[in-house]
Amino acid sequence: MKLAELSTPAALIDHERMLRNIDRMQAQVNSRGVAFRPHVKTSKCVAVADLQRQAGANGITVSTLKEAEQFFSAGFTDILYAVGIVESKLKQAAALLARGCKLVLLVDNLTAAQAVVAYGLANRLRFELLIEIDTDGHRSGVDPRSENLLQIGRCLHDGGQVLAGVMTHAGASYACSSTAELQAIAEQERSLCVLAAQNLRAAGLPCSVVSVGSTPTALSARDLSGVTEVRAGVYVFFDLVMANVGVCSPQDIALSVLTTVIGHQPEKGWVIVDAGWMAMSRDRGTASQARDFGYGQVCDLAGQVIDGFVITGANQEHGIVSRTPAGPDPKIAEQFPIGSLWRILPNHACATAAQFPQYHCVSQDAVVGEWDRFYGW
Amino acid sequence: MKLAELSTPAALIDHERMLRNIDRMQAQVNSRGVAFRPHVKTSKCVAVADLQRQAGANGITVSTLKEAEQFFSAGFTDILYAVGIVESKLKQAAALLARGCKLVLLVDNLTAAQAVVAYGLANRLRFELLIEIDTDGHRSGVDPRSENLLQIGRCLHDGGQVLAGVMTHAGASYACSSTAELQAIAEQERSLCVLAAQNLRAAGLPCSVVSVGSTPTALSARDLSGVTEVRAGVYVFFDLVMANVGVCSPQDIALSVLTTVIGHQPEKGWVIVDAGWMAMSRDRGTASQARDFGYGQVCDLAGQVIDGFVITGANQEHGIVSRTPAGPDPKIAEQFPIGSLWRILPNHACATAAQFPQYHCVSQDAVVGEWDRFYGW
Repeated sequence: MKLAELSTPAALIDHERMLRNIDRMQAQVNSRGVAFRPHVKTSKCVAVADLQRQAGANGITVSTLKEAEQFFSAGFTDILYAVGIVESKLKQAAALLARGCKLVLLVDNLTAAQAVVAYGLANRLRFELLIEIDTDGHRSGVDPRSENLLQIGRCLHDGGQVLAGVMTHAGASYACSSTAELQAIAEQERSLCVLAAQNLRAAGLPCSVVSVGSTPTALSARDLSGVTEVRAGVYVFFDLVMANVGVCSPQDIALSVLTTVIGHQPEKGWVIVDAGWMAMSRDRGTASQARDFGYGQVCDLAGQVIDGFVITGANQEHGIVSRTPAGPDPKIAEQFPIGSLWRILPNHACATAAQFPQYHCVSQDAVVGEWDRFYGW
Repeated sequence: MKLAELSTPAALIDHERMLRNIDRMQAQVNSRGVAFRPHVKTSKCVAVADLQRQAGANGITVSTLKEAEQFFSAGFTDILYAVGIVESKLKQAAALLARGCKLVLLVDNLTAAQAVVAYGLANRLRFELLIEIDTDGHRSGVDPRSENLLQIGRCLHDGGQVLAGVMTHAGASYACSSTAELQAIAEQERSLCVLAAQNLRAAGLPCSVVSVGSTPTALSARDLSGVTEVRAGVYVFFDLVMANVGVCSPQDIALSVLTTVIGHQPEKGWVIVDAGWMAMSRDRGTASQARDFGYGQVCDLAGQVIDGFVITGANQEHGIVSRTPAGPDPKIAEQFPIGSLWRILPNHACATAAQFPQYHCVSQDAVVGEWDRFYGW
């Protein structure tokens, strides 16, 4: 099938770009001498994760237990569930262990650690766990210098669970926009996570795993001494937010939404397309960055950027394309005739991909794969 | 099953609130003496649309041809596809006609009208169509006073298609926040759509249908003279955007997301919950309104608002609850202990609902229905 025969809106993966992105990240992490555990929450697609595994990944990271179940059923056995566990989810996690999955859980508070220990004792189970470390004040995790870290570690270890190590995610790296900032946050992520590991070990506790990562820090770290594995997710597709951060160019972005022109408001300089926010998602991540791409950057069918034309407004099934920042283009209707097809690069690949049940993997103008993805919890 | 036994995050429908919302809208439209055609893009759920039909709705409105196919297969035969048609989608529309669906299409430009006529002639089909009228400069549609309107009408009628009438959607009503503004935009929507109908008729063209609507205007119109049907969608659930517009209160909002507390950052006054943007959507519709609810308003399990506590930040599977505008609450961890369950009201019900494969319909603390919804195109 040809690209131009697809119904719109449709989620496209540019096969060559994705393979380049996968190889670039794997080579980068290899060069630092650590293992790589991709975060599959971006694609939620077995075909994509298979390519990451073939490139050299060791295990996967997931953001929901449903992802863990789906990927385990597809043959991925080494899985880190990188969202803090709570008591009510232990039964679902235990069912995966019972099926033979090497599932690693995450905790960042004593209440959760105690619940894991109690459940483990009651059910004669040994969960494997990482303690989440806060290295940038961004979200979750414990202070690497805190007594809290040691309490959680002792609770798990003394309670008969497997304290595997520590992990952190420097989400604040998404706010960077220079190489110097990126290198600094990568070093902060590394050094504070390694410090947490050292503090656990100094207290006589085991800590073999030191897991760090985000796409910006993974691509920017110059030194990963003391780290055992890196995680990253969005790099597989990249997106306009990452282009603004400075870790890719728009020409690297492998995910796009195919759309059809369905109308014009020529006196306003508007083209109406069938990619609204249901297709692009409501993510406006570039709004707070150096360059605001609205709801997405317009490209031609070959994936080349049409500079200055973005989706400036979106309703559920309508996108409004206009020229910015140059202002309304009175001849926009001639450039974008009714029925013509365009590709839109997303602000945030994780959010846009989530709107679609399926990817169409394309190479040049041919569809070379139809790949399901899943959603929900 | 009890509400508290559900896995989180989960999409909840409060059964009583939804039934009240359905009855309120149907009674309002009945009182104006016109037919009601609910927009099912909000729920994408047959069980919900069945309740709207039982309450008195005449036909449904859809935003994608997939919705048309799904609802037709479930027994809904009278369907308006309220997004401008283009040539590439006519084959899919024709397949629905062939199955016996009374599908009505929408056009707002001569190119699309000519494509419909050409396809109809080539395939011996008579499509039924409405012409979209622009009554508020919001998005699509033709000027009701324009020669363009008459050209499209003549093209369809003389080309052997069924020119059924005109329709408009005053999307600008979402920006209103007072009764006077709402009544004014409702009257503008009505009068300009009726004017378009009069202009078509004066040119000797048929125009039996005059279809208007949006949730704010449908609930605010004092007079609907000349209108034959009203459309509205989000009213079935309502949301925080609609509360800010002033057409419902937070206590009317029937959709919420059940979430579990998974962590704390007490020194920041943060509670971490498992409803991130993947569950709430990235919609920040209240950011530009009188009251900004972040990514959603926190409620207790009974659905009562916990005033001042909203989701102020969101990552994919993490939401950050904090107190606003009063500032960080140093005792927030006591009020929201690890493992406790809360309900979050959404900014925009259409966007939040779209993140879930299933609704759990609840009455008091009991789950009384498990209803599938669909997505994609």
